[in-house]
Amino acid sequence: MIDEEICPAEPWQVRETRLDTALLAPTESVFALANGYLGLRGNLDEGEPHEISGTYLSSYYEERPLPYPEGGYGYPEQGETVVNVTDGKIIRLTVDDEQFHVGRGVLHSHQRVLDLRTGLLRREVDWESPAGRRVRIRSERLVSFTQRAVAAIVYEVEAVDRQVRITLQSGLAANEEQVKVSDDPRVAAALEDPLEAVEQDTEQHGAVLLHRTRRSGLLMAAGMDHIVEAPAAYQEETDVREDWARTTVVTVLPPGGRLRLIKFVAYGWSTSRSTEALRDQVAAALNTARYVGWDGLAAEQRGYLDDFWDGADVEVDGDPALQQAVRFGLFHVLQAGARTERQAIPAKGLTGPGYDGHAFWDTEGHVLPLLAYTAPRAAADALRWRHTILPQARQRAGMLGLSGAAFPWRTIGGSECSAYWPAGTAALHLNAVVALAVDRYRRITGDTALEPECGLEILVETARLWVSHGHHDTAGRWHVDGVTGPDEYSAVADDNVFTNLMAARNLRAAADACARHPELAARLGVATDEPENWRACAKTVHIPYDESLGVHPQSEGFTRYAAWPFPDERADGPLMLRAPYFQLYRRQVCKQADLVLAMHWCPDAFTPEQKARNVDYYERITVRDSSLSACTQAVMCAEVGHLELAHDYAWEAAMVDLRDLHGNTRDGLHIASLAGAWSALVEGFGGLRECETGPAEIELAPRLPSGITRMRFNLRYRGRRLWVEADHQSTRVGLRDRDGGRLPILLYGDQVEVGMDEPVTRPVVRLDPLLPVPQQPPGYAPRRRGERP
Amino acid sequence: MIDEEICPAEPWQVRETRLDTALLAPTESVFALANGYLGLRGNLDEGEPHEISGTYLSSYYEERPLPYPEGGYGYPEQGETVVNVTDGKIIRLTVDDEQFHVGRGVLHSHQRVLDLRTGLLRREVDWESPAGRRVRIRSERLVSFTQRAVAAIVYEVEAVDRQVRITLQSGLAANEEQVKVSDDPRVAAALEDPLEAVEQDTEQHGAVLLHRTRRSGLLMAAGMDHIVEAPAAYQEETDVREDWARTTVVTVLPPGGRLRLIKFVAYGWSTSRSTEALRDQVAAALNTARYVGWDGLAAEQRGYLDDFWDGADVEVDGDPALQQAVRFGLFHVLQAGARTERQAIPAKGLTGPGYDGHAFWDTEGHVLPLLAYTAPRAAADALRWRHTILPQARQRAGMLGLSGAAFPWRTIGGSECSAYWPAGTAALHLNAVVALAVDRYRRITGDTALEPECGLEILVETARLWVSHGHHDTAGRWHVDGVTGPDEYSAVADDNVFTNLMAARNLRAAADACARHPELAARLGVATDEPENWRACAKTVHIPYDESLGVHPQSEGFTRYAAWPFPDERADGPLMLRAPYFQLYRRQVCKQADLVLAMHWCPDAFTPEQKARNVDYYERITVRDSSLSACTQAVMCAEVGHLELAHDYAWEAAMVDLRDLHGNTRDGLHIASLAGAWSALVEGFGGLRECETGPAEIELAPRLPSGITRMRFNLRYRGRRLWVEADHQSTRVGLRDRDGGRLPILLYGDQVEVGMDEPVTRPVVRLDPLLPVPQQPPGYAPRRRGERP
Repeated sequence: MIDEEICPAEPWQVRETRLDTALLAPTESVFALANGYLGLRGNLDEGEPHEISGTYLSSYYEERPLPYPEGGYGYPEQGETVVNVTDGKIIRLTVDDEQFHVGRGVLHSHQRVLDLRTGLLRREVDWESPAGRRVRIRSERLVSFTQRAVAAIVYEVEAVDRQVRITLQSGLAANEEQVKVSDDPRVAAALEDPLEAVEQDTEQHGAVLLHRTRRSGLLMAAGMDHIVEAPAAYQEETDVREDWARTTVVTVLPPGGRLRLIKFVAYGWSTSRSTEALRDQVAAALNTARYVGWDGLAAEQRGYLDDFWDGADVEVDGDPALQQAVRFGLFHVLQAGARTERQAIPAKGLTGPGYDGHAFWDTEGHVLPLLAYTAPRAAADALRWRHTILPQARQRAGMLGLSGAAFPWRTIGGSECSAYWPAGTAALHLNAVVALAVDRYRRITGDTALEPECGLEILVETARLWVSHGHHDTAGRWHVDGVTGPDEYSAVADDNVFTNLMAARNLRAAADACARHPELAARLGVATDEPENWRACAKTVHIPYDESLGVHPQSEGFTRYAAWPFPDERADGPLMLRAPYFQLYRRQVCKQADLVLAMHWCPDAFTPEQKARNVDYYERITVRDSSLSACTQAVMCAEVGHLELAHDYAWEAAMVDLRDLHGNTRDGLHIASLAGAWSALVEGFGGLRECETGPAEIELAPRLPSGITRMRFNLRYRGRRLWVEADHQSTRVGLRDRDGGRLPILLYGDQVEVGMDEPVTRPVVRLDPLLPVPQQPPGYAPRRRGERP
Repeated sequence: MIDEEICPAEPWQVRETRLDTALLAPTESVFALANGYLGLRGNLDEGEPHEISGTYLSSYYEERPLPYPEGGYGYPEQGETVVNVTDGKIIRLTVDDEQFHVGRGVLHSHQRVLDLRTGLLRREVDWESPAGRRVRIRSERLVSFTQRAVAAIVYEVEAVDRQVRITLQSGLAANEEQVKVSDDPRVAAALEDPLEAVEQDTEQHGAVLLHRTRRSGLLMAAGMDHIVEAPAAYQEETDVREDWARTTVVTVLPPGGRLRLIKFVAYGWSTSRSTEALRDQVAAALNTARYVGWDGLAAEQRGYLDDFWDGADVEVDGDPALQQAVRFGLFHVLQAGARTERQAIPAKGLTGPGYDGHAFWDTEGHVLPLLAYTAPRAAADALRWRHTILPQARQRAGMLGLSGAAFPWRTIGGSECSAYWPAGTAALHLNAVVALAVDRYRRITGDTALEPECGLEILVETARLWVSHGHHDTAGRWHVDGVTGPDEYSAVADDNVFTNLMAARNLRAAADACARHPELAARLGVATDEPENWRACAKTVHIPYDESLGVHPQSEGFTRYAAWPFPDERADGPLMLRAPYFQLYRRQVCKQADLVLAMHWCPDAFTPEQKARNVDYYERITVRDSSLSACTQAVMCAEVGHLELAHDYAWEAAMVDLRDLHGNTRDGLHIASLAGAWSALVEGFGGLRECETGPAEIELAPRLPSGITRMRFNLRYRGRRLWVEADHQSTRVGLRDRDGGRLPILLYGDQVEVGMDEPVTRPVVRLDPLLPVPQQPPGYAPRRRGERP
């Protein structure tokens, strides 16, 4: 388990003080570097030992058949799985006649540092070979935010006390041996050896390898180039084979002498370009990188990140672990989304093979709001990606007998890859979450160009989906039947409150957008009465309410179900690994926030008292077997006044990977949960909401738990930088850009206007919770901050 | 398509007047012979051409893995598939130098007759070889009801006009090439070559082959022995290999001369016995058969069937096709169940590989009532089989988090083999159907020994299942949530009326049985308050009712759902092949009778007006994509007075295989639908019901549709033979056995007593339907009797 001792809470870095090979797998994810296009897991430079060696290119995947023992109409027959592409990270070191390996000889010290300001992964090793030769190794690695095809490594070996012969082998390696992802032999067959060699080329100081996936037919190229700095003569040569290339540098170092190898790596892939074009593209990327050099790349990286932090940083005083974690989360969310350029942002970013590299609605729901507030261009590109898969989504809707577009539950290339429809296809709400992301992007960024470019079409097509799926009963109420809400321990139920409210928002947003762009709407074939009909459905949407309990049932009839028979002591692992869906679905037990998420994202649909009662009710039956629950519970617990409980949930969301709380960080980071940690702080303790109606655009109501003495967060809002600072006494809000004039906001419910030179200060308005702090099921209280997980 | 021209409506036989190779597959099922232990498809004697060659032993199966692209807790990982065992039917004929084949030379005539009284399949062929040699072939085949391991064939060749040299090759063949059942390569892998040779033995006039299945490890033996009758000298020899054996007879026939080969075939299989024991068992069966001889076997067969028909025959005047079909159905139901001797009765009997050879609740629901009324020992054995799989059912219940026993949705050996839980595991009602079969068996047969032997334990364990799954709401109503009723176009719904009523019957029956056997119940661990609790649950069971429509929703909320958007013209094939479950489940469309079946099996829970309204409502939304719907609709349409509509449904149920109405008779007969045809006549037009309470034991109310002028049916009731005869004027009821005294029955609602010499005659009491004849969805009206399907 990663803990404070091995990984202390430091504000701007994640530092591993010593190497524990039992933690290799999660730290490979934690130390992953990516830019949204290219991702390298934090594998050791020498390649071994590793748990999962990984290099990923955005949306580069292999297809695989999905076998069903009992098939059904509309079941997807092809899955997509992210490919571990040609590994360019490898630099092997031989010291005299001994290959360096952390498990051999004496490892005097081993430290790795992920620097959140420079964007570099640094490593320092002091090693003595079994034969007694001692060397110091320093390496730094980056995946460039400014040159998206490029990664670079600087690797330096120093002879400590004696003359040693040093051999460096810098490699490219395709079709690395992989861990077995599944027992299904066809899965293994597709992934074991996914790349077919197409062409190889030796450059002057490196090589380029071209491969193609066997089934999906995607062409890729990986290249490397090197600069050697040695104190004396050295020998360099490059070998190339179909599946590997190797540049070898040999020299002899005197005591204190240093050999420095700068390695540039570049990637490209394409569905349509020629081998030649791709080869040249990668060569150009390598040349540009070499031209800029390591120092230039590092400087560009720092500049890019300085600009990011300037509009995104969150300061948390009083809780150093949370301070570190929220920055770690922001950094990795940026790494996941910065340069996708119209490809999907997967659930794990580019940090691991978990979920087959698929993207889910988590991205639009949890990641894009953060990006819209901190890196708007990345958010826009992610929405453009959704727009590019509209053709597949329209086809899917048609297959389902529906109009409009039905986006996939999980996908890389746009096709539905979910093989269990009750928790995939039936989760129709994801379409409304996409629509909400489109709407929030516009509100937050003030960008009015994306809506006509692609937002409107998404809103229209999702609105059509809802109208074709919903229906009016004889009393005129509009229902959405047979769908699955966010909670995956319920499925295929009627009138899920989250779904219905979100569908209504989707319908209203589409109608509003059509009103803003009537000509474009007409070109999209929107009939004159369509928006009217959307509004009518939204207006009559049925929201079940349990009068006797005074709470909203998650779906029709939910609060009448039997309770889950929790034992007195919690068993290990999620319920779904020890109980069948057959039992889970018919009980009042929630894997994750569902009704509570509805209150977060559709705040106007509930009174404060309803929010308090609903939080109280669902806290008692929610088990957080999904990593995407704690953040929402944090936000809503904070809103109803349970600030200490909210703090615990915020900690749990933030530490999901730094403490490997779900035990699966090995497969990649929980990008949406990391975004959720930001949400817990900014939307939870900061009270940030966009206002759907009214003169004020956003709302703030900072209230801190006792363990946080001060919080300050920065946002980009409609082209301006907004800052909010709060302690237990007062809140200050200000702007750092003049353009756009004064900003009307609701601060603790009062409308105020904030300008560049006119920050607003208000005393904190305290909130007494309506109900006592609720209990969770036995053993399901949130992990406490001080508690060893 | 099988039609009247190729297969005329004859009262006691199914005769195919000429060979149409396009009909080979369905006629292989129609002409199948079986006795419940051993089944031979109606393949041609010479083995080819065939569509599906099949020889099946009850419960002899191979295991195969069930692959899931997304698995879940409690999903079965092993499937079971019936094995086509060593084929003993083959007798190849060579005439001079030409091998006989129906597709070569000139087929002057070819007739096959399944004789429902003798139980023999007769074939007569007049064939001229391409070289102009003409022979007549007569064969007869039986699968013995009296010697269950034995089949026999008599094969006679006659030289018509010239001397010919005749070679007969009588064979055993294991691992025959099979049609591909599935695209899953692992399915094919398991079934392609399922038998591993264990031992071979040559007998004096035949051979024995022993094999074992590769995964399930079941040992089997197949043997053959021969008697040759030739007008002149002949040569006989036998060859044996691992996977085949061949006895060859060669002779020369003068014009008019006949060569006659009598072939005895015997089978055995075992999980535990030794190779030697099994080899000897088969040899003994062959010796016994040879001792009795062909004529002896045929006489025993006739005797067995005479006895069966004596207590089972249904006479239908006015509708020759229905007359033929109901006898065909009775015959095949007997063939499916006669000698299972504590093995399952599969959905297809032993007539084909459909549904992998699995048994479903259809057997208890539709087949066992017929057997209880006509062949009670077979019904008892089928219930004993259920009792033998209680250990697996208890284990399954435990895995599902439930008490008692949860029987499998589909199985051969007792393990759950259903890979789609919403339509398998969730169909919990099947347990109540098993319990009902136990209860009805006792009521119908008067056998009080089976209940203490095994029935009580089944009732107790299923009652426990219900109590552990159901729950009381705060108002004290007892609910059964998240289950799937009989209608497979709905799933995982709450308070399915059929399920709830059947569960209540199950609970009452268990409590009653415990009261009858208090000591045994105590030995089964039934606590003193358990039966009381069962009755309390049954008493408070919630039965949803839609007051505004005046009908019962199939499940809670069903009548509020959207209508299915039927096009004006019906498309081919079942809805489930062109619409996803996601759409089917949330609409008011029924694959098969569900609420209507509840009214058939729980008649006392509905008023006559409710029955009329419910029939009217569900007729309009039921598409009969299951073959198990027409029979139930026939019964309930008859009960509410729609006699002509009921007649159409009865015809559809009865002709399911004789006209191949579902296009899949090739995979085996629809045994439960054939039983349902009997039910349509006897329970529909005869009005037969057992009375749950009151002094009368059974109820009758014969009312015939205009197309049936007279109907007479025979039943075995509590050891006596009961006959009922009705025409449009009057009904007569009588007993043919004196034992047990007079029988109190309700005839048209009046209590009468029937004795051996005191038949009762009553005028028919007509019933005016409350509502007009209902419409079905466009294109879904029942097939009309006169109409070409």
